[in-house]
Amino acid sequence: MAMRLKRRQVGTALAALAAGLTRTGAAAQGASDGPTKASADAHHLAMIRKYESLTGGDKLVIGMLVYPSMFLQDLVGPLTVFESLMNKEIHLLWKNTEPVGNEPGQPGPLIPVKPTTAFKDCPAKLDVLFVPGGVPGTLTVMEDPEVLAFLAEQGARAGYVTSVCTGSLILGAAGLLKGYRAASYWATRDVLRDLGATPSRQRVVIDRNRVTGGGVTAGIDFGLTLIAKLRTPAYAKAVQLYLEYDPQPPFNAGAPEKAPRIAREFLTDMYAELVRAAHATAKRAMARLG
Amino acid sequence: MAMRLKRRQVGTALAALAAGLTRTGAAAQGASDGPTKASADAHHLAMIRKYESLTGGDKLVIGMLVYPSMFLQDLVGPLTVFESLMNKEIHLLWKNTEPVGNEPGQPGPLIPVKPTTAFKDCPAKLDVLFVPGGVPGTLTVMEDPEVLAFLAEQGARAGYVTSVCTGSLILGAAGLLKGYRAASYWATRDVLRDLGATPSRQRVVIDRNRVTGGGVTAGIDFGLTLIAKLRTPAYAKAVQLYLEYDPQPPFNAGAPEKAPRIAREFLTDMYAELVRAAHATAKRAMARLG
Repeated sequence: MAMRLKRRQVGTALAALAAGLTRTGAAAQGASDGPTKASADAHHLAMIRKYESLTGGDKLVIGMLVYPSMFLQDLVGPLTVFESLMNKEIHLLWKNTEPVGNEPGQPGPLIPVKPTTAFKDCPAKLDVLFVPGGVPGTLTVMEDPEVLAFLAEQGARAGYVTSVCTGSLILGAAGLLKGYRAASYWATRDVLRDLGATPSRQRVVIDRNRVTGGGVTAGIDFGLTLIAKLRTPAYAKAVQLYLEYDPQPPFNAGAPEKAPRIAREFLTDMYAELVRAAHATAKRAMARLG
Repeated sequence: MAMRLKRRQVGTALAALAAGLTRTGAAAQGASDGPTKASADAHHLAMIRKYESLTGGDKLVIGMLVYPSMFLQDLVGPLTVFESLMNKEIHLLWKNTEPVGNEPGQPGPLIPVKPTTAFKDCPAKLDVLFVPGGVPGTLTVMEDPEVLAFLAEQGARAGYVTSVCTGSLILGAAGLLKGYRAASYWATRDVLRDLGATPSRQRVVIDRNRVTGGGVTAGIDFGLTLIAKLRTPAYAKAVQLYLEYDPQPPFNAGAPEKAPRIAREFLTDMYAELVRAAHATAKRAMARLG
């Protein structure tokens, strides 16, 4: 049973941990405390065997959409959780493998993301299809026929159809949330109604195989919730410890009903036109879906 | 007063929000609901003026070290918080501006980071010097004279000297934590003693101008704590709402004393050799510091 596990099946992060024990730098400097590559590999395989009851499971194939002007933390939170798993394969998906940076005329981002896999090379059956949020990219993608067709096709077959933040508006524009309860960023939650979905204030919403998270930082709660379903709650707890996810926000202002009035007004004012544009975009998307 | 603010001083994220109202995609498709570029800019400037009492302040110059085999979430958590500020300038710092990916023989990362600024081009005086964690990169950087010299020099002048996760071991190896209380990743906390620092279990530790966070996801708590000091608690709360940071972990397992025994044993076993190597590396670093 344990022997079925191949080295290539091992999670990136924990593989890095184990492989990291063979330190090129220290070796080059003649340091004698570092284990050899062979002993690190042996240690690694021993760990995999010893803890297979915790970390084992069939290979997971995870596809994560990336796009220009998405919000990096929306992607990196869930990615960090997924990457920590053993025996998985993660695809960062876009039309092509050119880095997705900013849309024309937009500032930043400081860290452009290079897709790993073009739509045409995406595995036919994903265990997880994931869509991050971020404006204004979300609104553009909500009207991009190529992306919507890809999501609709993959979403029909995927084990779980998922999102964080305004990513749920993209899922909705692809027709994937009609009749489902879903979460979104607090300021755009009501746009879900235009897409035939029922908005929820929950941080992570599970409705059949749709799993959607709230805004930005909800991606970490979302990721742990999902891997408890994909693997086991015990493994999700190990990942939570791995990421030292014991949040202690210095303030209690992370939701509109908890934040001071000035914070809520500032962001509501900033978002006003964007939210209007999101409603209009959603209505056009629904009209096209028929 | 308000007129002092220039467009280039505006925070990336909120600039994206405002600029996003001019949607290239929708415009190209002849949609008529989108505001024009001019009206979006006007809205944006009006917002800046209206909320200057909340978001105003002198320009912040923030330098964030990046390096091969760092842990992406360690960087992206604080970066997401810093990017949301108005009137700041963020540098991703390394020896050169080639993307920092993985160390030789290491897997991943899926998202390599391209530094924006080489050490030689770093502003002389940073308001914040930040170092992310991540193994095995941390151990290599702890013995890299060029990086340590850069950090020691910038750290002596910086307004705040900061880190998340194992980044504090790098600060320590640069001699910047002698006599300070500091946080680190739970598994490497005791290595701080080898570097002349006093380890703390707090999620974010402030000791004079040293502000250090615990493992990985502590970077968000760290970021908000720091901007409450750099700007105001009111602004930090607005950023918390912007990021919808209202964490609701599905389990209570994010610290060793809270996690189930199997999770703790799994990770402790995985880390055993790495922690030994970290102690040895720290002792060599201290010997060199004299």
